[in-house]
Amino acid sequence: MIAPFDDSYFMKKALQEAQYAFESDEIPVGAVIVVKDRIIARAHNLTEKLNDVTAHAEMQAITAAANFLGGKYLKECTLYVTLEPCQMCAGALYWSQISKIVFAARDPKRGYMTLGTCLHPKTKVVGGIMEQEASDLLKQFFAKKR
Amino acid sequence: MIAPFDDSYFMKKALQEAQYAFESDEIPVGAVIVVKDRIIARAHNLTEKLNDVTAHAEMQAITAAANFLGGKYLKECTLYVTLEPCQMCAGALYWSQISKIVFAARDPKRGYMTLGTCLHPKTKVVGGIMEQEASDLLKQFFAKKR
Repeated sequence: MIAPFDDSYFMKKALQEAQYAFESDEIPVGAVIVVKDRIIARAHNLTEKLNDVTAHAEMQAITAAANFLGGKYLKECTLYVTLEPCQMCAGALYWSQISKIVFAARDPKRGYMTLGTCLHPKTKVVGGIMEQEASDLLKQFFAKKR
Repeated sequence: MIAPFDDSYFMKKALQEAQYAFESDEIPVGAVIVVKDRIIARAHNLTEKLNDVTAHAEMQAITAAANFLGGKYLKECTLYVTLEPCQMCAGALYWSQISKIVFAARDPKRGYMTLGTCLHPKTKVVGGIMEQEASDLLKQFFAKKR
């Protein structure tokens, strides 16, 4: 049986968001938040456009999802994000009590795993879904900048 | 010689913001951001009102200060906040490259110091300024909730 709504399906949507960031000359990171196979928030990095270090894809997605749900906790939700969250975003995800985080590429320098940021004990994490695609887009962006 | 613009002066302004949060039934945390003895951002916790876990006083103050300055880095700025920042806010402060953080009360459970969040190497930190006042306001809030 084919499962159309698997992790790759939603990560592709997050990658599409990352592509929008790339096209706007932003570090290409995208995110979607899903509840019961339905996307309730889409966002991409806007730190340059908004002149705001807090405008990471995940932060905007958390705010948008809470707005959609009418409550600040994301207990039944899954975040798909193309890059391992940073300390700030992992800290926000901690407060949100999100069920699951799926990320694509690792961020060995500034990712929350390396820096030891604490997630909520109920949050599950899956890494490496479509890692190559996400990583290639980031490399392409930074190569263009040099 | 009297120095009117010392850390206590600005922490009182942050405490006033915390008082506004208290009066709105929000966990009473307030913040101001100062550059050259001038307050460029004021904020208090709005997580309940905005239904948004990211609406901590510090996060709003960072966004407002960057907006005022027209740039996303807060290299010449000092944040005054009535409670030790959490992982999310410390992570945002890391990205902002803020010069100095002055906080009042410690948060031994969820504060960034306990949880080991990494700040920018150039950021100086001072803790304990008007700790008693900030702590009393928080205790009064949680006593009211019980």
